Amino acid sequence: MLRHGPIVTLLTDFGDRDGYVAQMKGVMLSILPTINFVDISHHVPPQNVLIGALLLRNTFPTFPDGTIHLAVVDPGVGTDRRVVAVQVGQHWLVGPDNGLLSLVAVVEKIDRAVAIENSAIWRHPVSRTFHGRDIMAPAAAHLAKGAELAELGPPIDELVRLQPPEPIRQAGKLVGQILCVDHFGNIMLSLPAQNDYFGARDKSLVTFSSGGVEFSLPFVETYSDVPPGQLMLLEGSQGFLEIAARDGAANQMLRLREGAQITLSIPPGQ
Amino acid sequence: MLRHGPIVTLLTDFGDRDGYVAQMKGVMLSILPTINFVDISHHVPPQNVLIGALLLRNTFPTFPDGTIHLAVVDPGVGTDRRVVAVQVGQHWLVGPDNGLLSLVAVVEKIDRAVAIENSAIWRHPVSRTFHGRDIMAPAAAHLAKGAELAELGPPIDELVRLQPPEPIRQAGKLVGQILCVDHFGNIMLSLPAQNDYFGARDKSLVTFSSGGVEFSLPFVETYSDVPPGQLMLLEGSQGFLEIAARDGAANQMLRLREGAQITLSIPPGQ
Amino acid sequence: MLRHGPIVTLLTDFGDRDGYVAQMKGVMLSILPTINFVDISHHVPPQNVLIGALLLRNTFPTFPDGTIHLAVVDPGVGTDRRVVAVQVGQHWLVGPDNGLLSLVAVVEKIDRAVAIENSAIWRHPVSRTFHGRDIMAPAAAHLAKGAELAELGPPIDELVRLQPPEPIRQAGKLVGQILCVDHFGNIMLSLPAQNDYFGARDKSLVTFSSGGVEFSLPFVETYSDVPPGQLMLLEGSQGFLEIAARDGAANQMLRLREGAQITLSIPPGQ
Repeated sequence: MLRHGPIVTLLTDFGDRDGYVAQMKGVMLSILPTINFVDISHHVPPQNVLIGALLLRNTFPTFPDGTIHLAVVDPGVGTDRRVVAVQVGQHWLVGPDNGLLSLVAVVEKIDRAVAIENSAIWRHPVSRTFHGRDIMAPAAAHLAKGAELAELGPPIDELVRLQPPEPIRQAGKLVGQILCVDHFGNIMLSLPAQNDYFGARDKSLVTFSSGGVEFSLPFVETYSDVPPGQLMLLEGSQGFLEIAARDGAANQMLRLREGAQITLSIPPGQ
Repeated sequence: MLRHGPIVTLLTDFGDRDGYVAQMKGVMLSILPTINFVDISHHVPPQNVLIGALLLRNTFPTFPDGTIHLAVVDPGVGTDRRVVAVQVGQHWLVGPDNGLLSLVAVVEKIDRAVAIENSAIWRHPVSRTFHGRDIMAPAAAHLAKGAELAELGPPIDELVRLQPPEPIRQAGKLVGQILCVDHFGNIMLSLPAQNDYFGARDKSLVTFSSGGVEFSLPFVETYSDVPPGQLMLLEGSQGFLEIAARDGAANQMLRLREGAQITLSIPPGQ
Repeated sequence: MLRHGPIVTLLTDFGDRDGYVAQMKGVMLSILPTINFVDISHHVPPQNVLIGALLLRNTFPTFPDGTIHLAVVDPGVGTDRRVVAVQVGQHWLVGPDNGLLSLVAVVEKIDRAVAIENSAIWRHPVSRTFHGRDIMAPAAAHLAKGAELAELGPPIDELVRLQPPEPIRQAGKLVGQILCVDHFGNIMLSLPAQNDYFGARDKSLVTFSSGGVEFSLPFVETYSDVPPGQLMLLEGSQGFLEIAARDGAANQMLRLREGAQITLSIPPGQ
């Protein structure tokens, strides 16, 4: 067997200018110098726990068993919010108990959780504004080194949970929201893909309304099913319906904002 | 001999916000957990295959033999464009067959190429919009793990090739284009360095024209050969002539756009 | 003992688009393929040696003994400024001798320094504009591989030193400057934390003036000590006093620029 360093992923809203992420990595490498880091994103919109939770949910299943995921979007640092470590299958997650870790439970059951209250593993002195570096990073590194969850602190029964944005079904309509807009301008909707929203109905043109504006898009399988520059609806790679534009940026054509409500009309059966 | 994990570089137009790069890394680590990743760039302008191909060409030769390079700038995802793996000396490259990998051939001969059609190595279900994660990343990881090219799919004879932008020589003139503008505002021209464009002629002032505007720059060896704030022409570190400004951003002084044509006057011999 | 690859951190003003950082990593991996890289930041404002020096000072102590830190903010490339390697405790630093490495000496004593003049270890041909790749990266990799400082070049006695920005104490006042503004809009002042600037005086409201504007802030321990949207002064995680806004961006509320002078009034003892 080829021995190798454990994998630790990082997800934060720290940006990439200030060295904050590197400080967390330095703290972890001081505990276990063989860690193989993977950055998920450090560009979660500042303090946007929901976007962070979605990114984590979308990304963690691609990693192998044994991976530790350190997630820090922590607007409540310095309050009495807990810091937790969680086991989900053979993945371990560390972060603030503010819902950030909770959407993984949509994918897999949370098996065990502890509050990271054992101050013997913290980095001292503990900054009052950077628990990611001084509490969470050491906890993640100790897990990477083989510590049991119980060594980090006492078990807890319940995590703070985000309500995953679920579409609401109304007569002939599906009401959802814009989850996020990606680097390419693709618009991810809070409508899980691979649901049969439409049944046998005509999918050639799906009608949306948002902010008083109505528009219709073809529901297609891939980008090349429409001509260049055209908008479309399709099942995106992240498990949600997405609005995209071939060779273009849908968000620039449709001025839809993250968080905005969007209503999809389901035509009557034919 | 110190055993070590194989090196895999990544080059994409995915940006760094959405976790797409991390998903490719997770898929690869699930196949081989010892990979040592190096990000070349994830800020190729969206769907700009030429810039991606130039970056790959400029960067891959700095890496050691045995490196695998995964490059994903893939506007044709979902069309019938092929996905390929290529051997160039002791480097392996994986990407869409749209020219992205083809400029490395300017540096070294492409030895062998296959179409990645063996679906047994793909990640399933294969997203219709993210072959980087579901087809190319697994192929790169299998190469890193020691697979032969032939295990990925059948050999192919020809890659789609980009025409590397070559300067055109006309009477007393050299017509090229702006390849790209870098982070510092340096303007890279499609004029390979270390050519003797000027012979014994006077290099003290080279005259350019672009977009109807004419300007002259000294051709110097390094930034400090001109006073602070001054523009210059020099042989850049990427193998092309560059226009730069000492302690400043040339692109802000000269409003030249990527892709714009630029003409360099070669003075008559003296 | 688990053998592992040496850790090399990177700090530059190269940005993340152009592959320059990857070229340095490729050069280093060609010398030692087991290096475990950590990026501190590549978004130092272009040619801003002071910000780079502060980031290095704030970040290097989180890393374990044996780490090599490669720092390249090098406006003088091509001049006769020296390129140096420095030992500080059990850390090694490589960079241009322009002050970039000198603020670590505020934290720990510089033990030894050499000029990297042994051209046998350089990468050839040496670009006249990219010594980071062709001189500094090879030097860092050779240190990572176990080379002695003396193998890189002759010892030197003195480094170019930046004056660390020290607050000036005047009658009832402390005159400092804005060191930098971080990703969250937090404003870092050149006033080291954990000094007793105020003694027994009233800290409930500290009065500042900058650019002719006067404002008062509560001096608190953590973000949650003020209501959402409110400004505060606190000891930041980087060892300096910081002005922050709870759930907001202080720099947008207070239009203070990096480098601006700021005066803090110390109220008379009570």
